[in-house]
Amino acid sequence: MAAALMRFSSVRLLAATLSPYGVHQKHGQISNQRRQFSNTYISVEMDDATGVAVMKMKRPPVNSLNLELLTEFAISLEKLEIDRGCRGVILTSAIPKIFSAGLDITEMCGKNADHYGEFWRALQEMWLKLYGSNMVTIAAINGSSPAGGCLLAVSCDYRIMADNKKYTIGLNETQLGIVAPFWFKDIMTDTIGHRATERSLELGMLYSPTDALKIGLVDEVVAEDKVLSTASAVMAQWFAVPDHARQLTKSMMRKPNLDRLVTHREADIKNFVSFISRDSIQKSLQIYMEMLKKKGS
Amino acid sequence: MAAALMRFSSVRLLAATLSPYGVHQKHGQISNQRRQFSNTYISVEMDDATGVAVMKMKRPPVNSLNLELLTEFAISLEKLEIDRGCRGVILTSAIPKIFSAGLDITEMCGKNADHYGEFWRALQEMWLKLYGSNMVTIAAINGSSPAGGCLLAVSCDYRIMADNKKYTIGLNETQLGIVAPFWFKDIMTDTIGHRATERSLELGMLYSPTDALKIGLVDEVVAEDKVLSTASAVMAQWFAVPDHARQLTKSMMRKPNLDRLVTHREADIKNFVSFISRDSIQKSLQIYMEMLKKKGS
Amino acid sequence: MAAALMRFSSVRLLAATLSPYGVHQKHGQISNQRRQFSNTYISVEMDDATGVAVMKMKRPPVNSLNLELLTEFAISLEKLEIDRGCRGVILTSAIPKIFSAGLDITEMCGKNADHYGEFWRALQEMWLKLYGSNMVTIAAINGSSPAGGCLLAVSCDYRIMADNKKYTIGLNETQLGIVAPFWFKDIMTDTIGHRATERSLELGMLYSPTDALKIGLVDEVVAEDKVLSTASAVMAQWFAVPDHARQLTKSMMRKPNLDRLVTHREADIKNFVSFISRDSIQKSLQIYMEMLKKKGS
Repeated sequence: MAAALMRFSSVRLLAATLSPYGVHQKHGQISNQRRQFSNTYISVEMDDATGVAVMKMKRPPVNSLNLELLTEFAISLEKLEIDRGCRGVILTSAIPKIFSAGLDITEMCGKNADHYGEFWRALQEMWLKLYGSNMVTIAAINGSSPAGGCLLAVSCDYRIMADNKKYTIGLNETQLGIVAPFWFKDIMTDTIGHRATERSLELGMLYSPTDALKIGLVDEVVAEDKVLSTASAVMAQWFAVPDHARQLTKSMMRKPNLDRLVTHREADIKNFVSFISRDSIQKSLQIYMEMLKKKGS
Repeated sequence: MAAALMRFSSVRLLAATLSPYGVHQKHGQISNQRRQFSNTYISVEMDDATGVAVMKMKRPPVNSLNLELLTEFAISLEKLEIDRGCRGVILTSAIPKIFSAGLDITEMCGKNADHYGEFWRALQEMWLKLYGSNMVTIAAINGSSPAGGCLLAVSCDYRIMADNKKYTIGLNETQLGIVAPFWFKDIMTDTIGHRATERSLELGMLYSPTDALKIGLVDEVVAEDKVLSTASAVMAQWFAVPDHARQLTKSMMRKPNLDRLVTHREADIKNFVSFISRDSIQKSLQIYMEMLKKKGS
Repeated sequence: MAAALMRFSSVRLLAATLSPYGVHQKHGQISNQRRQFSNTYISVEMDDATGVAVMKMKRPPVNSLNLELLTEFAISLEKLEIDRGCRGVILTSAIPKIFSAGLDITEMCGKNADHYGEFWRALQEMWLKLYGSNMVTIAAINGSSPAGGCLLAVSCDYRIMADNKKYTIGLNETQLGIVAPFWFKDIMTDTIGHRATERSLELGMLYSPTDALKIGLVDEVVAEDKVLSTASAVMAQWFAVPDHARQLTKSMMRKPNLDRLVTHREADIKNFVSFISRDSIQKSLQIYMEMLKKKGS
């Protein structure tokens, strides 16, 4: 029996033993320093000692996802993905009280079909890179996270949200008169189940951190000033698993969703462009934008 | 930040603002009155002021679903679907203590293959219309709801059940020696998950309102005399979402299940007819019916 | 109304009434005695009075699943499946503190490709028989149950685990640097949902009985000395349902998963053989085995 009991208690030890082959496989040439690179709307701080990059969105006032931010997001991720020193990314916001408000409505309003198409393709591209990343991705949700903001969070491997009743998270597209595309729906269903997704998407529900935790939309709710440190601690747990086995498993779980978008990518763009170009939708969005302007001024 | 916070709090307001394009889109020519139409087994009261129809099953003693009731059900729904004044349906029972006992066994016993086929097609037709409805559908479950009764409830957008320990709900077909078809199984799985469905269908389990709430088979349990008023209040919440966005979302969630039945419709009928025509099944059902007769007399 | 109420309360009675056609359908020639058959690693005790077989794994020290055990397992199940007197199987361990430690690593280490292929095929064969069984299968989990041990449990119709904090259950393959195949993942997803499976498989999580119950990985946790008697009591509940209806329902729920493995069986073998033959994987497993040997001696 001794051998049997050993077998289970020694697993963590084994993971450490395996280091040369798995755990730190991307650590080819590590140098003990922090590196930074920054674009207009995305800043990245890479810690070579830990293998963790912190990626911050910084587009005031609400980190709304415009074409440029989405493009920088995808490029930054790609850069980290091929960086042998980087094994995990913590995604967070540089702006207080908001994680991301989701898609920038100005990109979907009063522009032409070509622009809408380019914008939607950039969104798809960002998502394929984030959801399909080989790295461990942790969302440190330090503020509200509706619509596209929620998509970012749900695409990560793990979600930690700040414990503040004023913050909400959810796919609330229908409330604006628009519709979440099938790939938002697919990963929402995988995260909280079909029934909760159906109700939540049809009503455009936004959840408090506590309620989000209850339905499994986030994995953990912690004090506002502990979000980043908790993300680091969780990252260490994920790093204890041999990378190659974790990556193959992640790919097995996520490939069907990735494949579905890749297969239907052009149809999805066409569908978005045609929907958003409707007069009725454009009118709704214009009313909404004017309302925002008035209130914001 | 003001703009950001506005953005979230003003969403409800927006929904109201959108009214001309979305929220009340079906209100072409409204007249401020209640209209009623009634068949043998279904009665409908349509309130033009609210856009809500209350549809009641009234086939004593237990609202069992015979060919005629199913046909009237489908026709009534179709009528409401094309009524521009109707945006939502509350489905309930006119008979105390019972929502619906499910399929009428006399339709499945001692008849010929043609009859079984016609009956099954009517059931499919009713379901395609109810589950695929563009309207908001709320089940006000004011009594027991086994088998086909449970199917009706699970096909709606929302389920409110009367808080009475004597009432039960579930797909208990196996207890009668018969089998729920794949499309019952599909929507049950979407509602309560695969594992709960597997166990529940194999054992033919019936749940109390409290247990049904716990596994997510119903969304809310309220005092018996509050079922209808709660349904109206919930309907108002669903009406706050622009119709076109809610409808597109509902269709996205439900299309795979609808498509599956449409594709396999004839095979499903053939399968039912062949199963129900077996001598052993007919014998079981006859024993069961005689037992009911004796006990009922 | 009397008839209506009867309808629901008489269902259990009906099941009994149906006996000649359904409930005891496999009881062709019953004899009131216990029969036993035993192989090297599997022993079976069949009780003709109840229709229940107890199947025990007995391969010290930890019931690790080697080629021979897997083969005997499949043959024993097949034997019970065609035994008209047997309607249900309780699967348990003859060894204290361990249900099964999963696949025997010596079968995956230092052998040739043909051997790996043969081993994997035997695992698939055992699983197809267990997961696809027409009998009621109940796992009486009287000890730890990692990896392949967890697969055995999750393949049954119902899981009862001993209430002992030292015992754990889960698909912890990644912790050993290996990957659970798609069919382990499929039934895990059906049991505990997509999100819990993703996290659990990527991290190689092992759950205490209490935590396993919380996420639905087991159905019941009982005192260690009540595991077998509870299994018998639960079996009686499952036997109350007419066999043919329960079997058709089980098949409807499980066929997609069975079909997927049958369809991709050769590719799955090829994939396993190629993965396990990698130098890096072989090195990891050797280190692990030497560690076990040292600790065990």
